[in-house]
Amino acid sequence: MASVETSVPQTTISMLQDKAAQLRIDSIRSTTEAGSGHPTTCASCAEIMSALFFSVMRYDPKNPRNPRNDAFVLSKGHAAPILYSAWAEAGLFPREELLKLRKFDSDLEGHPTPRLPFVDVATGSLGQGVCAAVGIALAGKYLDKIDQRVYVLLGDGETAEGSVWEAAHVASYHKLDNLCATVDVNRLGQSQPTMDQHDMEAHRARWAAFGWNAIVVDGHDLNALLEAYRTAESTTGRPTAVLARTIKGKDIPGEEDKNGFHGKALDRKQAEEAIASIGKSIHGNGAWKPTLPSKSSEAIAAPVESAFPPPPYAPGKDEIATRKAFGSALAALGKADSRVVVLDADVENSTYTEDFQKVCPDRFFEMFIAEQNMVGAAMGLSAHGHIPFASTFACFLSRAYDFVRMAAIGDNNIKLVGTHAGVSIGEDGPSQMGLEDLAIMAAQPNITVLYPSDGVSTWASIKLAADIQGPVYVRTGRPKNPVVYQPTEKFEVGKSKVLRQSGSDLLTIVASGVTLFEALQACDTLKAEGINVRLVDLFSVEPIDRDGLIAAAKATGGRVLTVEDHYAHGGIGDSVLAALSDQRITLEKLAVRRIPHSGTPEELLDKYGISASHIVEAARRMVPA
Amino acid sequence: MASVETSVPQTTISMLQDKAAQLRIDSIRSTTEAGSGHPTTCASCAEIMSALFFSVMRYDPKNPRNPRNDAFVLSKGHAAPILYSAWAEAGLFPREELLKLRKFDSDLEGHPTPRLPFVDVATGSLGQGVCAAVGIALAGKYLDKIDQRVYVLLGDGETAEGSVWEAAHVASYHKLDNLCATVDVNRLGQSQPTMDQHDMEAHRARWAAFGWNAIVVDGHDLNALLEAYRTAESTTGRPTAVLARTIKGKDIPGEEDKNGFHGKALDRKQAEEAIASIGKSIHGNGAWKPTLPSKSSEAIAAPVESAFPPPPYAPGKDEIATRKAFGSALAALGKADSRVVVLDADVENSTYTEDFQKVCPDRFFEMFIAEQNMVGAAMGLSAHGHIPFASTFACFLSRAYDFVRMAAIGDNNIKLVGTHAGVSIGEDGPSQMGLEDLAIMAAQPNITVLYPSDGVSTWASIKLAADIQGPVYVRTGRPKNPVVYQPTEKFEVGKSKVLRQSGSDLLTIVASGVTLFEALQACDTLKAEGINVRLVDLFSVEPIDRDGLIAAAKATGGRVLTVEDHYAHGGIGDSVLAALSDQRITLEKLAVRRIPHSGTPEELLDKYGISASHIVEAARRMVPA
Repeated sequence: MASVETSVPQTTISMLQDKAAQLRIDSIRSTTEAGSGHPTTCASCAEIMSALFFSVMRYDPKNPRNPRNDAFVLSKGHAAPILYSAWAEAGLFPREELLKLRKFDSDLEGHPTPRLPFVDVATGSLGQGVCAAVGIALAGKYLDKIDQRVYVLLGDGETAEGSVWEAAHVASYHKLDNLCATVDVNRLGQSQPTMDQHDMEAHRARWAAFGWNAIVVDGHDLNALLEAYRTAESTTGRPTAVLARTIKGKDIPGEEDKNGFHGKALDRKQAEEAIASIGKSIHGNGAWKPTLPSKSSEAIAAPVESAFPPPPYAPGKDEIATRKAFGSALAALGKADSRVVVLDADVENSTYTEDFQKVCPDRFFEMFIAEQNMVGAAMGLSAHGHIPFASTFACFLSRAYDFVRMAAIGDNNIKLVGTHAGVSIGEDGPSQMGLEDLAIMAAQPNITVLYPSDGVSTWASIKLAADIQGPVYVRTGRPKNPVVYQPTEKFEVGKSKVLRQSGSDLLTIVASGVTLFEALQACDTLKAEGINVRLVDLFSVEPIDRDGLIAAAKATGGRVLTVEDHYAHGGIGDSVLAALSDQRITLEKLAVRRIPHSGTPEELLDKYGISASHIVEAARRMVPA
Repeated sequence: MASVETSVPQTTISMLQDKAAQLRIDSIRSTTEAGSGHPTTCASCAEIMSALFFSVMRYDPKNPRNPRNDAFVLSKGHAAPILYSAWAEAGLFPREELLKLRKFDSDLEGHPTPRLPFVDVATGSLGQGVCAAVGIALAGKYLDKIDQRVYVLLGDGETAEGSVWEAAHVASYHKLDNLCATVDVNRLGQSQPTMDQHDMEAHRARWAAFGWNAIVVDGHDLNALLEAYRTAESTTGRPTAVLARTIKGKDIPGEEDKNGFHGKALDRKQAEEAIASIGKSIHGNGAWKPTLPSKSSEAIAAPVESAFPPPPYAPGKDEIATRKAFGSALAALGKADSRVVVLDADVENSTYTEDFQKVCPDRFFEMFIAEQNMVGAAMGLSAHGHIPFASTFACFLSRAYDFVRMAAIGDNNIKLVGTHAGVSIGEDGPSQMGLEDLAIMAAQPNITVLYPSDGVSTWASIKLAADIQGPVYVRTGRPKNPVVYQPTEKFEVGKSKVLRQSGSDLLTIVASGVTLFEALQACDTLKAEGINVRLVDLFSVEPIDRDGLIAAAKATGGRVLTVEDHYAHGGIGDSVLAALSDQRITLEKLAVRRIPHSGTPEELLDKYGISASHIVEAARRMVPA
């Protein structure tokens, strides 16, 4: 590691100045060609990007997916053009590609996505990249144990986002000295100056108060930047924040440090003038040679996989809550697959991820009551080859919904498990009930949504979640329920299970979770009345078992009754409706239709119309007289 | 205002000690009776609650809704039993009521909701009450201009939530010296110690770094607490944070400062012992007399309402984006109704709320890039009689979704307007596209969701939003569209509009927003082919125009085609399906079915299957040959 006293040769500084100028030129040129984008946002961080990409970071410019590369996350995603320019300048692709910025046939999109090989997580919703960087740093320091540094670039306006401070707090708690954040303090937001403008002491005090080594520099002074990054490298036990005072629109004539130029491409004439002006400072002294990733580091451990055991549950044995089966399955999976990592938001004794922690303490990370950063860190971990399960009460995953949205955009391989779904949690009241989790998770077009009902299906869902490539959500509940499946039962994504059927079924009932047990009771009551019904355990909400549902609906006169411990919009009723939309069926949806109240689980299932008696009533209404 | 030197008579301290003991006893008794709840969480803050409720706060204990009362928000909502105990002790209701805690027939729920007259916003999702308190403080200081102080109590584990720091940052920016936060630093979270445990300097440094007057005290020392609150009262130009070092489970034998007792009610025997032990310290010296709210304050201005003008748009005139019409309508509404307040997340020049700021600068609050706190502050403002419109890009409202969830639970009168919906924003790419906003907003059972298509209907929707009591979401878009309605057209919640119809329609097309204009084009093409179709502008997504949709479906052979610039799950297609679920119809849903890419708006509408040509194709498939 370089000591902070090492002085940098002037030829290096000169080379870096040239690179910074070139990055400014390329950012201007590409945004002008696109007719939109954020050139002034790029201009403020040109020296920062030059220092990182052409001096500080060790990486293979021909192989951005090399897991030993130092990692870089552009948390201020709207500076995408300068990120693309840096990789072009590093030689990954020809500079002319930059002129395809923001076009449909290029992956150089308006904001970065992992469609590009040098992007781990999609950014463009501010305050998220820094959380992903925490996940990457956790992976590098504690799991892969490699000599890798993680750099993340934020904007100053971005630090108004609370998720930044969630990341800052958890990063210092976990002593992530391999993590270095740079804040490009260019004083101006989109519509006006930021809260702190150029009050660098305010910026410094905040990061220091969160336990970071906080260094203030002139963000256009390459010597100062390099020294700060060297200090960061030699700092142990805590992460470093480089707070770089910069000028928005730096070196763009007429736009420096001025409000009103955010997100505005220069017109062609302005661009030509700016490029000519900036180009004058390029001297062409000194060539860049990449510093390849360290070879001396320990090998990244290859994933170890062994057989995942069958579930220890069977019908007729003890009742079990799906959240408890989740915890047990996760512990078993952790022992079977070294890629599995678990993140908790201080509820491990309610979600039972404590079972995983007991057997795999080194792969369990406590992220405290900060769900946004928990999901963001999972995104970062997933981008570096791990399979993170992030879990809390289903309702509190809504806290991280914008992160879930961005994880879907990036198709990150994260696994979210929500516990305590629905009114069946009882006395804690509506603030603790997940009643919209299916709606919000299934809304994303690439999230697989599983909703197991008993211990056996929960056990299977956790293994399926790990095996699927891409984001997965599993819904679990608080109350204990009987086991309905044999431990040998096979579950598949996109397949439902028929639990009751006869040759004379008049109605299909579709349920999952606690309402499956209400429906089973209802089936018995109805059968005693001479009404045979078909009962489907949906299990896989997205993708849904369209063929199975069509077959059931066709066999039962096109009469379908859905029942769910979820609000009426966007839950399993709506998913079933969508699957059967061209079948000319009739469907009644039993769901929670108003804000619930505290009470006992049994009371609430009944008060909100989703108990066995309501199912029986609806069935009687629906079947032919 | 009291000076900090005033010493408190020992009789007062003794009275407050008695009250603290009584609050502990009542919290234990009620949770034991309920069989669940958080007695140890209450025990740590008993002196804080006693000091605030029986010495510091000026309020009418018989009229908790008196707008001049000092405000109190329990941000650590799981301490609900001690809040209820405090109001019982203050005389609002008989102490025996406390034994109904968590029961269905009592509004003393597991976590506080505004069903109770002394609760402004539902809490129980941590880190939200402090944001609501910012809104209440903004109202008191800048709108109502009354001599009112706002107190909020947080837990220490709660300060891991980023929203706390969003609130802290914005509160100091807006110089909210009428705001005082207390952090009950009891060292223990749910499952383990907090990140900072009893490191009071870490706590102090953070609040100070965010510009607050930060005071560390022993949270069980009533003299110290009272002195801190007096200092807070006399501090100008910035809010105060009282960081109170406390013992979780204080005075509960065997549970003090011990992990493993979070959220566990004592059994009856333990409770009796604890109550007997705590009861010994009650001496019954000194009676409490409430300090009523100040009478010297200026009158709260009565709302001023004048006529809301008709929209300045008409068919055939200029095209206008619905986001632009939103900004103009909001400015007009601001002039017509003094209750209207606008909150922005540094995008006022994209959402056009800058139009409101120009005409009503005193009722415009810049909340910077911190959407959670923006929505939380709106909740607080709404609880104090204002009508807050909080607006940003539709996708970024997802950042505040847990706040939206809690606003629904509290039925807060907030108005959310999302701009830049859908792929039709174009080049900025998926991170900036709101494609799940309808799904997440309509999921809540009491949020009204409006989706206007042109300038006239947008204008109407903003007035409707203000007039509806309860949470409302309005979806607007980026591109310019023609005006289709006459300025005199009347719009209603729950009513759609039929834009094309004939006596021989073969299909109903339902659209809104940009896809309405694609559908209009498609109607012309189809008509030229001899295919008459009925075109419905949905306008009101929730509640939906069930009767209108049934009539249209029945008139068109039960054939329905929906088209939306939204993901397929939970959007208008699913809402229409749910409305027609018992009609045995056939429905095809055109929607965005995968993660989109950057491109031009026209290109993207076509690539993702929601352009006029796709509508024409689908219609041809659906109508009888």
